[in-house]
Amino acid sequence: MARIGFIGLGRMGLPMARNLMKTGHDLKAFDVADGPVATLAGEGATRTASAGEVAKGVDCLITMLPEGRHTLDVYGRSGVLDAASVGTLIIDCSSIDLESARQAHTLAADAGFAMLDAPVSGGVGGAVGGTLTFMCGGSADAFARASPILQGMGRRIVYCGAAGAGQAVKMCNQIMAATSMAIAAEALVLAERLGIDPKIFHEVITASSGGSWIMQNYPPVAGLAPNAAANNAFAPGFTTALMLKDVKIFEAAAQAAGVPSPVGAAATQLYQILHDQGAAGLDYSSVIELLRGRASRTPAAETRP
Amino acid sequence: MARIGFIGLGRMGLPMARNLMKTGHDLKAFDVADGPVATLAGEGATRTASAGEVAKGVDCLITMLPEGRHTLDVYGRSGVLDAASVGTLIIDCSSIDLESARQAHTLAADAGFAMLDAPVSGGVGGAVGGTLTFMCGGSADAFARASPILQGMGRRIVYCGAAGAGQAVKMCNQIMAATSMAIAAEALVLAERLGIDPKIFHEVITASSGGSWIMQNYPPVAGLAPNAAANNAFAPGFTTALMLKDVKIFEAAAQAAGVPSPVGAAATQLYQILHDQGAAGLDYSSVIELLRGRASRTPAAETRP
Amino acid sequence: MARIGFIGLGRMGLPMARNLMKTGHDLKAFDVADGPVATLAGEGATRTASAGEVAKGVDCLITMLPEGRHTLDVYGRSGVLDAASVGTLIIDCSSIDLESARQAHTLAADAGFAMLDAPVSGGVGGAVGGTLTFMCGGSADAFARASPILQGMGRRIVYCGAAGAGQAVKMCNQIMAATSMAIAAEALVLAERLGIDPKIFHEVITASSGGSWIMQNYPPVAGLAPNAAANNAFAPGFTTALMLKDVKIFEAAAQAAGVPSPVGAAATQLYQILHDQGAAGLDYSSVIELLRGRASRTPAAETRP
Amino acid sequence: MARIGFIGLGRMGLPMARNLMKTGHDLKAFDVADGPVATLAGEGATRTASAGEVAKGVDCLITMLPEGRHTLDVYGRSGVLDAASVGTLIIDCSSIDLESARQAHTLAADAGFAMLDAPVSGGVGGAVGGTLTFMCGGSADAFARASPILQGMGRRIVYCGAAGAGQAVKMCNQIMAATSMAIAAEALVLAERLGIDPKIFHEVITASSGGSWIMQNYPPVAGLAPNAAANNAFAPGFTTALMLKDVKIFEAAAQAAGVPSPVGAAATQLYQILHDQGAAGLDYSSVIELLRGRASRTPAAETRP
Repeated sequence: MARIGFIGLGRMGLPMARNLMKTGHDLKAFDVADGPVATLAGEGATRTASAGEVAKGVDCLITMLPEGRHTLDVYGRSGVLDAASVGTLIIDCSSIDLESARQAHTLAADAGFAMLDAPVSGGVGGAVGGTLTFMCGGSADAFARASPILQGMGRRIVYCGAAGAGQAVKMCNQIMAATSMAIAAEALVLAERLGIDPKIFHEVITASSGGSWIMQNYPPVAGLAPNAAANNAFAPGFTTALMLKDVKIFEAAAQAAGVPSPVGAAATQLYQILHDQGAAGLDYSSVIELLRGRASRTPAAETRP
Repeated sequence: MARIGFIGLGRMGLPMARNLMKTGHDLKAFDVADGPVATLAGEGATRTASAGEVAKGVDCLITMLPEGRHTLDVYGRSGVLDAASVGTLIIDCSSIDLESARQAHTLAADAGFAMLDAPVSGGVGGAVGGTLTFMCGGSADAFARASPILQGMGRRIVYCGAAGAGQAVKMCNQIMAATSMAIAAEALVLAERLGIDPKIFHEVITASSGGSWIMQNYPPVAGLAPNAAANNAFAPGFTTALMLKDVKIFEAAAQAAGVPSPVGAAATQLYQILHDQGAAGLDYSSVIELLRGRASRTPAAETRP
Repeated sequence: MARIGFIGLGRMGLPMARNLMKTGHDLKAFDVADGPVATLAGEGATRTASAGEVAKGVDCLITMLPEGRHTLDVYGRSGVLDAASVGTLIIDCSSIDLESARQAHTLAADAGFAMLDAPVSGGVGGAVGGTLTFMCGGSADAFARASPILQGMGRRIVYCGAAGAGQAVKMCNQIMAATSMAIAAEALVLAERLGIDPKIFHEVITASSGGSWIMQNYPPVAGLAPNAAANNAFAPGFTTALMLKDVKIFEAAAQAAGVPSPVGAAATQLYQILHDQGAAGLDYSSVIELLRGRASRTPAAETRP
Repeated sequence: MARIGFIGLGRMGLPMARNLMKTGHDLKAFDVADGPVATLAGEGATRTASAGEVAKGVDCLITMLPEGRHTLDVYGRSGVLDAASVGTLIIDCSSIDLESARQAHTLAADAGFAMLDAPVSGGVGGAVGGTLTFMCGGSADAFARASPILQGMGRRIVYCGAAGAGQAVKMCNQIMAATSMAIAAEALVLAERLGIDPKIFHEVITASSGGSWIMQNYPPVAGLAPNAAANNAFAPGFTTALMLKDVKIFEAAAQAAGVPSPVGAAATQLYQILHDQGAAGLDYSSVIELLRGRASRTPAAETRP
């Protein structure tokens, strides 16, 4: 079993770290918030006073942070790369923009460390249940070393390619999911207006060329699939704010690469409007409410990040 | 077995009519082109000299035509509704715009006939193999009478609701498929630029929330799925011209109903540009070539309808 | 002076008819609403009981109606073309879709009448002040005959080309104005967020390549131009509902002609969303409120047409 | 007269520097390319071997560079801020992204220098003729000091607000111009298809609510305005590549600020497609050719930047 440093104990990071401990790893943990650090310490983790301290004497350092600037802050100013021992494996599980991911790889490489970008899919449920998918980018060697550790937190550990490839595949998945949701919502609202029974609609489309994972498992209409946020007044699930962050990451990467993305851009703009209408804290499937011309339900004050 | 009149023996209609004959029905057939009528007559169908004549003395009259105006011409000026006997069941299998479908239902109802709109999915392969899906709109009684006949041409016969509901569900499926293709292409081109192996990409996305029927079975990159047009230099399959027709039907219906469709509209515009760049006769998955910045491959002269 | 029949006495038609009377024409008037007919009769017009009756014994028949179906109803079922004398000039001042305009021309021509489509710009203010612009489509002869009459209601009478050309130019102007408004609003909201003084912004852009009639004369921010609806909490002016109708006319014509319109389509979708959020009865410059993430101000119940 | 250092002698920078010399300023110049430095030295400028050297002993340091990273390189790694004397005024005339502009201001401020972002409009013609517009962001004091110098190169020197405000207004102007061009082109292509004479179209729209600076002065159809690139087979003028860069800057800023930009995003995507179809080196008004379904005219090999 390995000694693992873990930075970032949010809604995803805390259960991920916990699963690593259950697997038998020694854990040192840090977060800017004291609460989750204390919680984890109560379960056996070593508490540390700073990000830098976490990195000392561990075999592997894992970060799970909100945005690219946070990863870069930890790799840069916080001093973790100075504090880490030679040979420490660096894994960033955050979902961040490609440019930051590349800079993070450069920082790690310049400091002599092997690094993997390893964003996840599966949400809080997957983090708690240890069933996440990890999309990994970096050297084959780093992937080989990371795999047994990541298996303590997930079910599918996929090698996507060189540095940044994990983030690349993740952002592509997100724009595809967001677009599937948007077009499913547009079609469902039209079908509603035309008097089509949504159950019949769901049954036909799910078996046809218009089908998608979203339509089958997470449709924006209640009563069609057991786990859909639509069943629960759009309580997330995955918030509009988070999906908006992810689709913007895709659009920024597409613009930087000079790849046209007219459909993805239209979806991104739709989620921006949805977000600004007060649905930031609702599940992103609430986009159907915007298309129905209904006011969204969470007060703007609560939901603007 | 029934006496069936069949109008419209194109790439879809001819094999559909043939399957009805194989099932044991008596067939009278008409098309503006002599060739397919002669072909079918050679296989045992009764040849007729006009659309009106087809309608005489049949139990059921089926049309399979390119656009709404053709269906309306047949129901209106051609005189088939005058020629048909009381009790003839009218089925329109064409994929047409909602407004025309509604007018067709009105024409049929005014003339005293039960009618079903029953557009299909499954393409030429499904028409030949008798494995089409029929999406049906009309009275429950008309559906009950039509089902045994449609089963001679298809595998799934689905009741979608009242008059026009078949067209409604069909158009929704098409915009969802077209959008799935467009966003899959956008994501795949970005992934290519970023050096991701398309096979890995396909494998990951297919099992994730970004997955779709299109991504799994009909991706726009060669070598990922056995039946994709991308494997064969975008020979159709389903042409850009036909998909453009279908997505415009959705957009027109959404605009008429006052339903926003920003993502569907962006996809529609992308296929219009693709079409105009010379890809009308290529499979619609050739949209990936446009996104790659490559010239399309069919000369405009051949492909403009 | 001419004997003129006038059908459609709404917010535009009533003052237009009044101006014709002031010019010295004899007027027969009809509307489905009794109020404006009575008003006009009180000012000297001949009151009629039906649309058909208006057409009897006039030199020129003018319609000013909301949508294409109304023009077609008047030309078709109402019997005006049967009632009109040989040589009556037919002018439709309604802003309608191209397909309906063409059908109206065909109905008129089939009945032996010269017709002009002559939609206007200038709004209620222009109708009252007699300063409208008329964009005219039809034969040069019909235009020559219509010009002196139209000059009683407007300042600029422009010949745009053959049948439908007036509607074509009108719809192009509307999509350009709607798009100018939308992009001005997007830019102004970003400028606001970045702390730019809107007056400086207005001054710079108005003199630069990004300038537009809208930005100069009708910007969506208060205090920049004297006649902007933004100065008056977005009281119309020109409602979102009317602008949405107009941009849909453009989009339908572009789709029918096979012309890509990705930017116009995006603007159209934005106004559909704005409309559905409750701004149908507000000026269309209220699109800036949607982009600011603010709830619109008119209750949906009042504004849905 | 002032001692001025000038870095970046491209198609814009060289004539700008020349105009400063004509005004009587002492000029030190640097560029990564030797040619323009030699040219300017031949006209009386002091030649320097490095960017750092330019900054020594000048009152004012001006940069005119392609992208944000170049400005940041000059301010950062090149050592100019170390080399500059206390009190040197720093002016960046490059059109760059907002994030880089802010970083540049921070670098300058941290080193103790007053700085102005002062991007220009007016193109090569304005640079040669000394008729540029400068949009300036920074302290009022920096603006006051810079104005007399900038007047040597331009006609309108506008104070837009605090640090970054010049870039903000510039990017807004660019997205508005690009969108005006796109919608003018969409409307003109539809008008062409419908048989409208472009001269009539131009005359009507120019005087109506759909009018814009672009439509009036730089329309994408030949023969309508004297200086339009359309008159000369779309020889630039302002290239698609440069316009694409500018609209991406707007979109990035809007996304960072959380401002929806559905219309601007659609225009941006259209220019990306145009660029990738081989029109990077053509004037951006060549977007009309894409909408007409015509192949663009410059080989991709020459035009990809």
